[in-house]
Amino acid sequence: MYSHTYLRDLITAIFSKMGCSKEDASTIAEILLKAELRNIPSHGILRIKDYHLLWKEGRINVSPEIRIIHETPGTAVVDADNAFGMVGAKRSMEIAIEKASSTGSGWVATRNSNHFGIAGYYAMMALEHDMMGFCVTNANPTVAPTFAVERLLGTNPVAFAVPANREHAFVADFATTPIPRGKIALAEKKGEKLPAGFVQDDKGYTSEDPSVLRRGGAILPLGGDRLHGSHKGFCMSSMVDILSGVISGANFGPFVPPGVAYLPRKDKQVGKGTGHFFGAVRIDGFMPGDEFRKRMDEWIRTFRNGRPAEGQEKIIIPGDPEREAEERILQEGIRLVPAVRDDLKAVADELGIKFE
Amino acid sequence: MYSHTYLRDLITAIFSKMGCSKEDASTIAEILLKAELRNIPSHGILRIKDYHLLWKEGRINVSPEIRIIHETPGTAVVDADNAFGMVGAKRSMEIAIEKASSTGSGWVATRNSNHFGIAGYYAMMALEHDMMGFCVTNANPTVAPTFAVERLLGTNPVAFAVPANREHAFVADFATTPIPRGKIALAEKKGEKLPAGFVQDDKGYTSEDPSVLRRGGAILPLGGDRLHGSHKGFCMSSMVDILSGVISGANFGPFVPPGVAYLPRKDKQVGKGTGHFFGAVRIDGFMPGDEFRKRMDEWIRTFRNGRPAEGQEKIIIPGDPEREAEERILQEGIRLVPAVRDDLKAVADELGIKFE
Repeated sequence: MYSHTYLRDLITAIFSKMGCSKEDASTIAEILLKAELRNIPSHGILRIKDYHLLWKEGRINVSPEIRIIHETPGTAVVDADNAFGMVGAKRSMEIAIEKASSTGSGWVATRNSNHFGIAGYYAMMALEHDMMGFCVTNANPTVAPTFAVERLLGTNPVAFAVPANREHAFVADFATTPIPRGKIALAEKKGEKLPAGFVQDDKGYTSEDPSVLRRGGAILPLGGDRLHGSHKGFCMSSMVDILSGVISGANFGPFVPPGVAYLPRKDKQVGKGTGHFFGAVRIDGFMPGDEFRKRMDEWIRTFRNGRPAEGQEKIIIPGDPEREAEERILQEGIRLVPAVRDDLKAVADELGIKFE
Repeated sequence: MYSHTYLRDLITAIFSKMGCSKEDASTIAEILLKAELRNIPSHGILRIKDYHLLWKEGRINVSPEIRIIHETPGTAVVDADNAFGMVGAKRSMEIAIEKASSTGSGWVATRNSNHFGIAGYYAMMALEHDMMGFCVTNANPTVAPTFAVERLLGTNPVAFAVPANREHAFVADFATTPIPRGKIALAEKKGEKLPAGFVQDDKGYTSEDPSVLRRGGAILPLGGDRLHGSHKGFCMSSMVDILSGVISGANFGPFVPPGVAYLPRKDKQVGKGTGHFFGAVRIDGFMPGDEFRKRMDEWIRTFRNGRPAEGQEKIIIPGDPEREAEERILQEGIRLVPAVRDDLKAVADELGIKFE
């Protein structure tokens, strides 16, 4: 069990040693640890091994010049200059917030970026400015559209954060697939079958075998099959890809670069790097902040107090489980599974940083 | 079989006779017919009977004063003054487009409105201005959130339209449930069972009986059950409800008024009428329009040319089936099923308008 501050200093040191500025290293540490605290370890310290490998292969720029390459009062395109994803993403969301301050809403499409951790972090940045926050990103293709066998989309998550008053903020942060990739890998490791509706084989038939992903299979869009609305999951994932990849000038669809070092760069590129899209919307662009936050309180209470199904305890408001985890883990400390701790130790050792 | 122009004139006459201005009547006719042409008859002429009943009961204002009650350069709240939904919705999207012209993006939340037909119509209005269009609406509650038995959400659709160059525009328009309500009613009428994953009974257990909806049951969010990601469908539907109902000052969640006359008004109201939310985003707020549209062409071709699953013909790009239907039905004419034709005839007769 490690304290949040110990790991923060360690991770900051690791990324500083790779050549990141102190500020960038501390941004990366903060966002990776936010994933740990919110109990989304698949997007936390687990990733450091791959980030380090990508850096060693020269696939990441640790001294990026992040700049706006096109803008209007309410929109911008940011080139992240191949930075670690968190660095360009945080700056992009800051720009969206600045633009929202003056025009009511700000929208930033980011190209030439990399894997950026949890989308929810950036959406939540808007909350302290009394804004709603929005963030999506495309990702390495693992998902087949409805009726397809090819992997043409990533798990393309959507995050949306809305402030409340006495209640905690509403924070949705979800992949546009029924299940995250990490859970499939875990089932394979354990030799377990998957429930139907998560993956398909290389001919497009639904499969319960998690290993099909390594043999031409694919993850299904949210909905699972056409009958149950997978074309709607495909629509959502497409919207994320168009915003993140097409209008930003990044790569889209099957051309999105991998976020891990063991996968090679793609031959064909249709833009620069991975793409994200950020939005900030001022609450008082619509109604006084106080009035809105009280309405959100009533929305949240209405849903939280809804009658639960038989055998269920309560209705879960988006963001509740992650926030409760954050309060608990901040107290208790962060537990690293042995494999992740060993990987972190190997990176620290290689960079000459003490970790025990 | 009726020609588009014949029905357009008939429907315009019907709404004019109810007291709508010529312009409003023709807006309503155009949007209802767009649903017929795009082969979404559940949102077309079928609705006229209910619109007429709502009007007879004094639940619709045919001489609305639609006005902006709050705004910034890029955002606004519109009060639709209890107009037929199409009238306030079209005006609201026009305002979003005007605001996008000056700031890069425009966002309008509309309160005090009613059922507005197909969301895709409004999103598509942006296309001719070289903008992306976005539209969502809340709706009469029929959907239970994950773990709930209460109906707290509507089928809350999302529409998103993106221009292309030589390819046709990308147009997604989908409910955030696996299946539209109309299909459930149809199965019940035919005495058919539903596949699992569409509805649940009054205790929250999945059911194959379409009639459970009349006995305390509910439609499930996209994803079906928690295991298959229904909490993600719940997140999406919540996002639609917050944008449409909370920030607009309309009703939200279980308080959204019914769109049909046989259901009574709700006792408790938390705002005014039904709510919608509209967005328009200028393409050249991000990159030159030409460049973007060519990129969209490549996106569309990449997906259209993806390898289909065994037994499938091709991958369907969102908007393709509706556009193909529109081309065909505009040629062939609009077929009304006998029950809908009879209802239309009854309304026309009652208003003293000739229809044969």
